[in-house]
Amino acid sequence: MAEAKTVTAAMLIIGNEILSGRTKDANLAYIAERLNALGIRLAEARVVPDVPGEIVDAVNALRARYTYVFTSGGIGPTHDDITAECIARAFGVKLAVHPEALRRLEERYAEIGVELNEARLRMAKTPEGAALIDNPVSAAPGFQIGNVFVMAGVPKIMQAMFESLRDRLVGGAPLLSRTIVCDLPEGHIASGLGAVQNRHPEVDIGSYPSYATSGFRVALVLRHTRQDALDAAARDVIALIRDLGGSPQEQAV
Amino acid sequence: MAEAKTVTAAMLIIGNEILSGRTKDANLAYIAERLNALGIRLAEARVVPDVPGEIVDAVNALRARYTYVFTSGGIGPTHDDITAECIARAFGVKLAVHPEALRRLEERYAEIGVELNEARLRMAKTPEGAALIDNPVSAAPGFQIGNVFVMAGVPKIMQAMFESLRDRLVGGAPLLSRTIVCDLPEGHIASGLGAVQNRHPEVDIGSYPSYATSGFRVALVLRHTRQDALDAAARDVIALIRDLGGSPQEQAV
Repeated sequence: MAEAKTVTAAMLIIGNEILSGRTKDANLAYIAERLNALGIRLAEARVVPDVPGEIVDAVNALRARYTYVFTSGGIGPTHDDITAECIARAFGVKLAVHPEALRRLEERYAEIGVELNEARLRMAKTPEGAALIDNPVSAAPGFQIGNVFVMAGVPKIMQAMFESLRDRLVGGAPLLSRTIVCDLPEGHIASGLGAVQNRHPEVDIGSYPSYATSGFRVALVLRHTRQDALDAAARDVIALIRDLGGSPQEQAV
Repeated sequence: MAEAKTVTAAMLIIGNEILSGRTKDANLAYIAERLNALGIRLAEARVVPDVPGEIVDAVNALRARYTYVFTSGGIGPTHDDITAECIARAFGVKLAVHPEALRRLEERYAEIGVELNEARLRMAKTPEGAALIDNPVSAAPGFQIGNVFVMAGVPKIMQAMFESLRDRLVGGAPLLSRTIVCDLPEGHIASGLGAVQNRHPEVDIGSYPSYATSGFRVALVLRHTRQDALDAAARDVIALIRDLGGSPQEQAV
């Protein structure tokens, strides 16, 4: 079986409110899980402030490097919503009113009887050449330009936008995983686990200790695109834990 | 009154488990809030996978640019814990057993009657020239080299390590903030708010809409190091909301 090519993505979270700690980001984990299911590996994430140069530089660094880039935040009507103009700058194109975005805003605001003022009109502007991303929650669309997908920061809207755009993404082979939970300390299994990793270099084996109320435990997470490779490594991990006197338990995903 | 210099920081979160969505990062918001209180502005965050080149490049990019860099993750005993060797590579120094780290591990493992095996001994290694960061939770220390502070990923341990190291940080003037909650839609206040921002260019004014069960609301967050500048801008924001027929409410921090 031929190896599928690796499709990668980066997430760019834009906003002072995340860096101040005021708002806890909820979008990264959502995007990560959804991309995994599509066979796209989230390879990097960055959080940058509402500063044009920072946004432009990050967009350009990430779009050159990964198959897809997803941004969240900064596309509303207020002065601190500068994402669209920064993306235009990053691509070296003009920011202009997108006729279909304008139509959707006109329709929406007529419906709810609210004035489509100059501030709200900003939400109809996209970099030239951008394709819209539907916003079933509050109408004002996101947009795609090149391999960059620009979404809202409010999680409910970001999630709806992601569902709107996912059919445009071409994934690779989905990354399969198995999680073996172990009741031995990490330091006890570490040497043997390293040997298992060396025998299965192609399988990504992560070791994650945690402290639950029921006491200490380690989750061993194995990932690969091929079930047979995954199962072979998992067999070795299970045998290792048993050999060391532990009780391995498979965790449902 | 002289302006205090701006002290900045970046956070580098290391680990495949964050990028897979399996683990939700809890450290960024903690660090952001603690730094704010110390007058240190978190200016960027990155999440990178357990890949040496990625970690080395990110550490070098961030440490050149910000006053302080904080890393979390990858300092345990297993094969996927590669942070210490990557930091050594980033600084171009050797990784070596730190005598005091070794002493602490020997003491700890003797106490709990557990063997200090080769895997656990890895946790005594630091880049040459590093100073330890205490770990009151599980003994294995973090470390500081130059302006980079290397901490565990498990939140309980990361937080304890941060409290251990905070006296080493020299902050600037703490960033003060006021939050005015508004019952008018963002698009309604946007134009006036932009004018307030223009009149107070030195105050950072953010507008954050959210959907609560009680309905739509916008939080306007004002930040500055000087109380008088903050209060002047807040007075204008409050007057703006009242002029537009809304009821501004101050939110306690």
